[in-house]
Amino acid sequence: ASNTASSKYLREFLDEMQPDQIREHLRKFTRLPHLAGTEQNLRYAEQIKKEWQEFGLDSVEMVPYDVLLSYPNKSQPNYISIVDQLGNEVFNTSLAEPVPQGYEDVSNIVPPYSAFSAKGQPEGDLVYVNYGRTEDFFQLEREMHINATGKIAIVRYGKIFRGNKVKNAMLAGAKGIIMFSDPADYWASGVQPYPDGWNLPGGGAQRGNVLNLNGAGDPLTPGYPAKEYTYRFSLEDGVGLPKIPVHPIGFHDAVLLLKNMGGQIPPNNWKGGLNVSYRIGPGFAGDFKSQKVRMNIHTNNQVTRIYNVIGRIRGALEPDRYVILGGHRDAWVFGGIDPMSGAAVVHENVRSAGRLLSKGWRPRRTIIFASWDAEEFGLLGSTEWAEDNAKLLQERAVAYINADSAIEGMYTLRVDCTPSLHTLVYDLTKQVSRFKCMQGNNILYLKIYMSKKPLISKLGSGSDFEAYFIRLGIAAGRARYTKNKKTERYSSYPVYHSVYETFEIVEKFYDPSFRRLRAVAQVRGGLIFLLADSQLLPLDANQYADSLRKYAQSIAQLAQKHPEEMEMYEVSFEFLFSSVDNFTVAARDFHERLQTINRADPLQVRLMNDQLMYLERAFIDPLGLPDRPFYRHVIFAPSSHNKYAGESFPGIYDALFDIENSADPEKAWEEVKRQISIAAFTVHAAAMTLTPPA
Amino acid sequence: ASNTASSKYLREFLDEMQPDQIREHLRKFTRLPHLAGTEQNLRYAEQIKKEWQEFGLDSVEMVPYDVLLSYPNKSQPNYISIVDQLGNEVFNTSLAEPVPQGYEDVSNIVPPYSAFSAKGQPEGDLVYVNYGRTEDFFQLEREMHINATGKIAIVRYGKIFRGNKVKNAMLAGAKGIIMFSDPADYWASGVQPYPDGWNLPGGGAQRGNVLNLNGAGDPLTPGYPAKEYTYRFSLEDGVGLPKIPVHPIGFHDAVLLLKNMGGQIPPNNWKGGLNVSYRIGPGFAGDFKSQKVRMNIHTNNQVTRIYNVIGRIRGALEPDRYVILGGHRDAWVFGGIDPMSGAAVVHENVRSAGRLLSKGWRPRRTIIFASWDAEEFGLLGSTEWAEDNAKLLQERAVAYINADSAIEGMYTLRVDCTPSLHTLVYDLTKQVSRFKCMQGNNILYLKIYMSKKPLISKLGSGSDFEAYFIRLGIAAGRARYTKNKKTERYSSYPVYHSVYETFEIVEKFYDPSFRRLRAVAQVRGGLIFLLADSQLLPLDANQYADSLRKYAQSIAQLAQKHPEEMEMYEVSFEFLFSSVDNFTVAARDFHERLQTINRADPLQVRLMNDQLMYLERAFIDPLGLPDRPFYRHVIFAPSSHNKYAGESFPGIYDALFDIENSADPEKAWEEVKRQISIAAFTVHAAAMTLTPPA
Repeated sequence: ASNTASSKYLREFLDEMQPDQIREHLRKFTRLPHLAGTEQNLRYAEQIKKEWQEFGLDSVEMVPYDVLLSYPNKSQPNYISIVDQLGNEVFNTSLAEPVPQGYEDVSNIVPPYSAFSAKGQPEGDLVYVNYGRTEDFFQLEREMHINATGKIAIVRYGKIFRGNKVKNAMLAGAKGIIMFSDPADYWASGVQPYPDGWNLPGGGAQRGNVLNLNGAGDPLTPGYPAKEYTYRFSLEDGVGLPKIPVHPIGFHDAVLLLKNMGGQIPPNNWKGGLNVSYRIGPGFAGDFKSQKVRMNIHTNNQVTRIYNVIGRIRGALEPDRYVILGGHRDAWVFGGIDPMSGAAVVHENVRSAGRLLSKGWRPRRTIIFASWDAEEFGLLGSTEWAEDNAKLLQERAVAYINADSAIEGMYTLRVDCTPSLHTLVYDLTKQVSRFKCMQGNNILYLKIYMSKKPLISKLGSGSDFEAYFIRLGIAAGRARYTKNKKTERYSSYPVYHSVYETFEIVEKFYDPSFRRLRAVAQVRGGLIFLLADSQLLPLDANQYADSLRKYAQSIAQLAQKHPEEMEMYEVSFEFLFSSVDNFTVAARDFHERLQTINRADPLQVRLMNDQLMYLERAFIDPLGLPDRPFYRHVIFAPSSHNKYAGESFPGIYDALFDIENSADPEKAWEEVKRQISIAAFTVHAAAMTLTPPA
Repeated sequence: ASNTASSKYLREFLDEMQPDQIREHLRKFTRLPHLAGTEQNLRYAEQIKKEWQEFGLDSVEMVPYDVLLSYPNKSQPNYISIVDQLGNEVFNTSLAEPVPQGYEDVSNIVPPYSAFSAKGQPEGDLVYVNYGRTEDFFQLEREMHINATGKIAIVRYGKIFRGNKVKNAMLAGAKGIIMFSDPADYWASGVQPYPDGWNLPGGGAQRGNVLNLNGAGDPLTPGYPAKEYTYRFSLEDGVGLPKIPVHPIGFHDAVLLLKNMGGQIPPNNWKGGLNVSYRIGPGFAGDFKSQKVRMNIHTNNQVTRIYNVIGRIRGALEPDRYVILGGHRDAWVFGGIDPMSGAAVVHENVRSAGRLLSKGWRPRRTIIFASWDAEEFGLLGSTEWAEDNAKLLQERAVAYINADSAIEGMYTLRVDCTPSLHTLVYDLTKQVSRFKCMQGNNILYLKIYMSKKPLISKLGSGSDFEAYFIRLGIAAGRARYTKNKKTERYSSYPVYHSVYETFEIVEKFYDPSFRRLRAVAQVRGGLIFLLADSQLLPLDANQYADSLRKYAQSIAQLAQKHPEEMEMYEVSFEFLFSSVDNFTVAARDFHERLQTINRADPLQVRLMNDQLMYLERAFIDPLGLPDRPFYRHVIFAPSSHNKYAGESFPGIYDALFDIENSADPEKAWEEVKRQISIAAFTVHAAAMTLTPPA
């Protein structure tokens, strides 16, 4: 399409997306629980496939994989007991959440559990370890002088990915770990618990996997798609499986475990919102001293078939350039927010794109829509497909836009993306705003522009963009409606991963008009449209240069917390800064050249676009980060200490983190120097990709 | 250039290459020793740079790296002694080779040594281990019941790469290893020793590095270019450095070490061509029983600056597509054959290309000419440049043609290349033949066509194509004049890596008319020309399909040596064969589609060419082969047991090899199954790259 035609089509594409349609999509796909690997999730997949075909995509296929999943044992429920001296269970935690009104007759609601927990019935004293962060365990051991070996850790959810808590507890020697949702972290003040508001009831608990995959996908087939012919490791050799039992509980149960605990009273930042003293333990105090805690965990690992749905619109001029919009379909229960608020938005994007196709539009590049399976079990569907198609994606993928939950708050739009997408996001949200303005509804967008820029942050992990961005180096971004971080301090959103994530919680509280979800649909859809249909790729190397400089300054500042060692071990960031200088000049020159090319010459356009497309790829180190072979992005990766947090220069960051922790400081500083050198090389090499090719 | 113009230019390009010019180039660059890291080798680099500029390349640059090299200590020579009971040295090996006539006044001839040998003066009994292959050590231990621990191994050169001999000796516990050139392996019958013929004199010895780099390049900077800012590992952590002293000797010295040895008389295939009984030892017999052997090795490792020369012709239409002709310049001494016969050919290619440029020609794609440094020390110059430019090469390199020694025999042309180049090699050599025919000199080529095809084999390793082909997955090939394998059974050529590799040995014996070298120049140059200037890339996926089928059959047959275990452990090649079937269909369909595209549409042409270019890349597994992270090609890599031998499906091959060797057969067979699965996946994924992109 010519530029003018393309711009007209964009307006039609965005205007076609309707709140009522999104409401219907969400209603349709949240009636029944559809956990990965279940019959119902396959039915939804088939329905999505059928509807995408009806909407008019060129092709839609189901792509199955056989991956390791984990389910509670139906005949032996998981729970935690307090046992007396005689071994009698004097208290047991609840076996299920109270079912929300209207869903009483629904079967197949999986009770709260920690997927991939080890089986077992460990018994022992509780030790409370706050959020279970590396620094919490340091404090426990070094300041409180408590050894968690042989104990059962009890930690509150929040701050970091739950798998990191489990790993830390294992490293500390704990023989089990219990995770609870504390009101301090999962309760908004002035809001009622569901169904009268959107807070987490005391009987609600957070499901979730407790793997430490570090991007491996299916634990038994790291690096390769889990297909019929694929070699599978044994469970003992699987990636990231915890070796101890793990279980999640709500705060009603947590109070009863915490209230009789003995030991020290912790510092204030270890205290949550329950009416207990949050003593550290180990074990109970006073009359309860002889009581122990026993975990009863019978969860099974099981290789199970999952299904991605992959739809395509073939590109008119460059069918070998892929723009991907992917989000997951599997849910812990109904998935009212996670993920179906996102899946409903994708559905509306596909419907709208189908309408455009029927009007004669065809994008310059190929668009791929994906409904991923088994995200909740470790990003499995998206990672297996990335592994299956790695060679194609590496050569051909322009960008990946993620479509998990479209809403987690009611305040404003939040975008996390690679720096080269900053300008596009900015320009697009202005346009979305303008369209909305004409419809008298620009209020939502004003907030985004208070600082003249939408709220844009770094990508971390914890959703399906991971394999595309951090392993393969494909430019990526995500967008959703979010809370006001300054005033709303709870983690994610209160009912996260509970049975209370229903259609009604969105309809009654989060987005009654479904306009917030439409805004997200327009932003996600608009990104895909512009990436697929612009003659010149809307990627901005100058923005990457700006970000690299900021990150380099920030990591250098972090290192400066150790000025003496920096001098003693001759640690310098000089070469990293000169690489960033090179990159800045190369990016500026590149965009100047881009202004002067002959746009009528298809090869000239393709050459420049290839340089833009491959820019993100240039930040990939095939050797991976230390001990994390599937995290290969030198600029962005989760910290080793929290999968959710995207760190810049993660290799340097982790090496600096380990300084505190190392028995051999010289060796630890050598690793810092090595990581700085790798970062400097990578940025320099990325700069070279922007210079004229010969 | 249009097809007709391109074909006219090809003829001019080939016809311009002249025997006398090649003679002059060879003469000029073999007058003085030019070991990597020496002043003289820098001078030759500067001269090459200057001449390439004069020939008319668009740009020529010197690209330095600081890599680990290894030199004998000038004030403490290396030698081996026989010592008596009192510790007196009763015999010492020679400190240098007799210098050939005409070179008596030349300084800086490095004596024979094993580069990167550990320092040390181990003393002990000799054990003779034939070629030092894995199977030789097995035989020594299992059949002859001799333990090499604490002994000094003495092995004959030949059959496998010397670094593998050293590794095997280390694994067997030897505290030193002596390598000698046996006449059985380095002597052509009926030929006089140099200077009266081209056989190795008894005082000559083979220099060479004894690293086990497995593609890492500079031992201290694996994975990254050895630049100013690059982190360097300590020597202890360096890659592939032997931990024991190593030294090479000629057969005059070898006789004196071998003749008094005691122990068993070995089987006939352990006996060489010397007039001794080749007893195994350990130690000497009879009157000499109390004598020991002492190695005196003082060789130093040293980080040293090396220089690649990189010249470029910018592509007219696709400057971002690279065709590379690279060969090394550094030599152990004069380098009459290795590498200057090859470097002289490259020089003539550049001269001829410059002439074309002056007539108005410019290739469609960019051509890069490289004069690599420090190949003899582990392919260092070429590997560091590949590491430096990996991101560019991965996206843009069409092919790499290697230009090491252009002649190793007088019989016929030998080409080792990736299967997708088979057709091009065949077509081109027919053309070269035709041109030569017109000049009345087609005799040389008839031999190539006795089987209707030129002699084409798999690539192994041991020269500078390694990083490009096996690490990066760039289609690669090499061509040289060779001996008749059936009648000439010696390893490489007799004077290999000795001081007797002079200009005169080429001029008097190997190629007095310099027409063999011209033929090699025309083949190497013709490959580069056609890869750079053809509108459609001359790469043939059907040939790859044929080769894959052959390799799959051959590896399945190898496994069938263990029919019972195959059944017991359920090992099957079924999925590998069905992947090969997929690939075969995809390749055939691809080439059918290629016939039908609109060649006037630049994007259509580019898309198909990209699929051809990236085909080789599809065989790369970023995880690498087991314990060899820089060998990433799933179809071709050296065996773990011999760097020189290119194995197909090397992962499966090595896993099968280990069956013999494993204490845990079940685990060993699991690894076979895993490797088959990786191979099946990779071939399947490669097939997908050939299907229509959307």
